[in-house]
Amino acid sequence: MINDKGKEKMNNKKNISDAVIRRLPRYYRYIGELKKNNIHRISSKELSEKMSITASQIRQDFSCFGGFGQQGLGYRVDYLYDELNKILGTDKGFNIIIIGAGNLGRALANYERIKNRGIKIIGVFDKNPNVIGTEVCGLTVLSIENICEFVNNNKVDIATLTVPRDQVKPMADLVVGCGIKGLWNFSAKELVVPEHVVVENVHLSDSIMVLGYKIIQKAEGAQNEKL
Amino acid sequence: MINDKGKEKMNNKKNISDAVIRRLPRYYRYIGELKKNNIHRISSKELSEKMSITASQIRQDFSCFGGFGQQGLGYRVDYLYDELNKILGTDKGFNIIIIGAGNLGRALANYERIKNRGIKIIGVFDKNPNVIGTEVCGLTVLSIENICEFVNNNKVDIATLTVPRDQVKPMADLVVGCGIKGLWNFSAKELVVPEHVVVENVHLSDSIMVLGYKIIQKAEGAQNEKL
Repeated sequence: MINDKGKEKMNNKKNISDAVIRRLPRYYRYIGELKKNNIHRISSKELSEKMSITASQIRQDFSCFGGFGQQGLGYRVDYLYDELNKILGTDKGFNIIIIGAGNLGRALANYERIKNRGIKIIGVFDKNPNVIGTEVCGLTVLSIENICEFVNNNKVDIATLTVPRDQVKPMADLVVGCGIKGLWNFSAKELVVPEHVVVENVHLSDSIMVLGYKIIQKAEGAQNEKL
Repeated sequence: MINDKGKEKMNNKKNISDAVIRRLPRYYRYIGELKKNNIHRISSKELSEKMSITASQIRQDFSCFGGFGQQGLGYRVDYLYDELNKILGTDKGFNIIIIGAGNLGRALANYERIKNRGIKIIGVFDKNPNVIGTEVCGLTVLSIENICEFVNNNKVDIATLTVPRDQVKPMADLVVGCGIKGLWNFSAKELVVPEHVVVENVHLSDSIMVLGYKIIQKAEGAQNEKL
């Protein structure tokens, strides 16, 4: 239940740390799984065991959004799922276009999991004449020259940038100029955008570097155990 | 400079939080950029401004690995870069194979940024007879039936799993059975692996959900300013 204090907190989301925000989709996945398995209630302790996060971290994270639970009763899975849907905007959904119909653009267009998240891919664009006119996931690839016209005629929330690194800045400028306010950038170059625009820079290389670090740690740990 | 206390800390890396570890590749990128631009020294304050992290966070993060700097003198860029290389294993590098030569597997095989991180792609595997024998990034796609033989004959550190969601568990079991100790999993299913194996589960849908959240927040903020 969200009490008055909770409401106050919900209206003041500006101070929520990036770390908390980045945990929300993970909560969404786990709670969605519980819902699918017809589990109706879960305590922060049970959820903590499933997710390998401490129960106090979970309570603290949820308190940023007003709580979601009552002391001693745990969380109602349905309610929690609905609230996360609202917070993450998956209830209303987002329309996205993909700029760059190479392997990565095509992979994202076909990524089922995205479509389960209220995301609708409504256009794919490229500048290569050999690619324009081909089909990706039921959509005909359009020329990037037609982007602004497309954005004027359709509600586009997010542009996915899967273009080569040296093309990402002009492409971002182009789509922001057309009025798009969300960029999902895979170019491995951190984009700086105007104040009214939001960008999510995805660095796939960061992820494999974290894996590399953990492999080294594990090997060193195994080595130390032998000594 | 790493003092004795620093060394002690370096030998006790088990308690370093995941949040700190996940910031390391970002430090690596920024410090690499400074090095490229012939900047020899940087203070935590200057680095803080570039990276939008507080200076105290930076000092705290680096202290987990023994420091890297001297009070008042800032960090030597070369030294910091070398230390990060060692910590992340990019100095020695990793050999990886890609399992699943669909769009995403091909995109990763061609992802230049990964190759700049000491990562060498040495094999690509698929089970589709129409795909086996084709070429990806200069490598002939092999049958997954040959994986164990390949792993026996080559040093393979990481298997990248870009297979459909329902195939990821048997595929992970297969490669772990062959002796691979690192999995980079793109299947949107969190893999649970044996104690001696490390897995990095990449959830691309989490990233776009965070973007969605931020778009909503930005829109609400703009709305509130108008009121």
